[in-house]
Amino acid sequence: SKRYTITLLPGDGIGREIISVATNVLKLAGSLEGIEFKFQEMPVGGAALDLIGVPLPEETLSTAKQSDAVLLGAIGGYAWDKNEKHLKPETGLLQLRAGLKVFANLRPATVLPQLVDASTLKKEVAEGVDLMVVRELTGGIYFGKPRGFGKNEKGEEIGFNTEVYATYEIDRIARVAFETARKRHGKLCSVDKANVLEASILWRNRVTAIASEYPDVELSHMYVDNAAMQLVRNPKQFDTIVTNNIFGDILSDEASMITGSIGMLPSASLGESGPGLFEPIHGSAPDIAGQDKANPLATVLSAAMLLKYGLGEEDAAKRIEAAVLDTLSRGYRTGDIHSAGNKLVGCKEMGEEVLKSV
Amino acid sequence: SKRYTITLLPGDGIGREIISVATNVLKLAGSLEGIEFKFQEMPVGGAALDLIGVPLPEETLSTAKQSDAVLLGAIGGYAWDKNEKHLKPETGLLQLRAGLKVFANLRPATVLPQLVDASTLKKEVAEGVDLMVVRELTGGIYFGKPRGFGKNEKGEEIGFNTEVYATYEIDRIARVAFETARKRHGKLCSVDKANVLEASILWRNRVTAIASEYPDVELSHMYVDNAAMQLVRNPKQFDTIVTNNIFGDILSDEASMITGSIGMLPSASLGESGPGLFEPIHGSAPDIAGQDKANPLATVLSAAMLLKYGLGEEDAAKRIEAAVLDTLSRGYRTGDIHSAGNKLVGCKEMGEEVLKSV
Ligand SMILES: CC(C)[C@H](C(=O)O)[C@@H](O)C(=O)O
Ligand SMILES: CC(C)[C@H](C(=O)O)[C@@H](O)C(=O)O
Repeated sequence: SKRYTITLLPGDGIGREIISVATNVLKLAGSLEGIEFKFQEMPVGGAALDLIGVPLPEETLSTAKQSDAVLLGAIGGYAWDKNEKHLKPETGLLQLRAGLKVFANLRPATVLPQLVDASTLKKEVAEGVDLMVVRELTGGIYFGKPRGFGKNEKGEEIGFNTEVYATYEIDRIARVAFETARKRHGKLCSVDKANVLEASILWRNRVTAIASEYPDVELSHMYVDNAAMQLVRNPKQFDTIVTNNIFGDILSDEASMITGSIGMLPSASLGESGPGLFEPIHGSAPDIAGQDKANPLATVLSAAMLLKYGLGEEDAAKRIEAAVLDTLSRGYRTGDIHSAGNKLVGCKEMGEEVLKSV
Repeated sequence: SKRYTITLLPGDGIGREIISVATNVLKLAGSLEGIEFKFQEMPVGGAALDLIGVPLPEETLSTAKQSDAVLLGAIGGYAWDKNEKHLKPETGLLQLRAGLKVFANLRPATVLPQLVDASTLKKEVAEGVDLMVVRELTGGIYFGKPRGFGKNEKGEEIGFNTEVYATYEIDRIARVAFETARKRHGKLCSVDKANVLEASILWRNRVTAIASEYPDVELSHMYVDNAAMQLVRNPKQFDTIVTNNIFGDILSDEASMITGSIGMLPSASLGESGPGLFEPIHGSAPDIAGQDKANPLATVLSAAMLLKYGLGEEDAAKRIEAAVLDTLSRGYRTGDIHSAGNKLVGCKEMGEEVLKSV
């Protein structure tokens, strides 16, 4: 039987509860497909700040690097917002992405038939939305240098960051996006601000150049302000979207909220080689942490992405996806997606119901 | 009687049609309040590229600078997307903003009772939305240096831009935002990405410092990705939003689409002194240009903002606002906001109906 080592990073807030559910689902789905897992739990984020004094301890990164895939709960929370060293838990997340070199962040935003009503969009607009944002994750303004604080010529205090992309960075994320679009509905929309930014002009030129390798994929370009509008006006027009780190941060969150069920949405972050990083797109929800109220399904679906994109175990992934849909069809809902006529359950019970459906 | 000189910049696409309607409304509302206007029309954008070879001719800028206010139609369109000199009409808009030093862009997003159904959001979510985005307009990554193309240490081609804010730039936009919030419902939400960007950390610190001058305004901070979500989840939570140039570009467009009636939304761009720039937030709509189909109401309402924010003529401004609401209540609609039971009219006829209501 196949064996994989998975690094578990529960992190902060509801992290531990949702990781525990997802781990059980992974184990069962794996065992039914002849897969065995070895799990190694390591601290990250606020939890690591408390324990070790840094948001990403060296040992956590080296353990993660040596494993086959990394499953992350959530990072951050009120508790560390004003710690003495001004170290933010979020820094740990950025260091983890950079350390694992996971430059491609895949974020599906799907309106499940069972959850159409959860969207704030009218039913006819929300129904059938099924898009994928491919966000560049280790470049752009998040990591660009120079950055920091200083003075301008007039001696005024300034804060500054650099949005910068090199051709190879654009080429590799473009290829991931074209491959993704090819496996979906063959449409790719590249989002930039090429009417204002040079970094976006290079982005547009390179994406257009790479398109010649994918004649079967239909490429279009859209300015980021227009994309933010079109996601509200008619999200169904999108299949796959590719964009830079900061625009991807904004648009993928907007897209996820359009589905109305942000507690349901997973993500995968992939590099050229080495382990991928898999995490729910929601945050650490400190307000409900430890209360058995969290929706574990985004993490469970992240575990499915881990199987599919991280390990190439498509059958086990499909098992989990089907189990989640089945559990929803049987009427089980956590508080965030609950509505009249459904069965309200906590995090643990939702996990048990998913296990029954695996 | 009072006299003002207004520079008219019809620009491209539907620009001429909508400016013509708005000018007539301005004239009438003015005359009823004892105000006389002198209008000077100048070329800008693609029209100026065709005529003079640059998107913002010197004479256009100097005329605009010497006037009391500038009313702009729209800039850009397919025709100039690939001109020989790679000069974009949009460059003219950025040069105009910089030339007039209009650093504060006020963009209301209001769901009018008459147009609730135009939104793609559910009625209960859209109803009553009434927010104002205050966008910094002459700084940040739009204008930051260094910018351009080059090579990195590895000899790879790069494209780069600089997001940079100086304290004085943040302080002055913050003051405009606090003043705006004070005149509205007393709530200001500052949007940044201070968990990642130094420019945003300075932004947050300065906005927080300026808050002490406005103890009557309730200040909150939100990350830009969360703001993009919250605008979809519950736009009614917002009163006034203040943010940087690029985030303001994205969020104000998202907010405007949430109202469902982007053809209705005006904007004002103001400096410390000198004339303000007033324009509809929609684009040049080349697909319907010259067909008498455009909705002139965003430009008419921009003329109202011109009176209010540009000239301090509140009474004349209110006249125009009331006339627009009255015209809608009488059932007149252009194609973009038309629905069953209403009277479908063209651009000109809509203008005539507004004149009747002034
Ligand atoms: C926490 C933050 C640094 C992070 C980001 O901006 O990338 C988050 O918003 C995300 O999208 O995963
Ligand atoms: C045309 C473009 C340069 C402009 C901007 O990005 O500022 C537009 O999108 C706007 O918001 O007025």
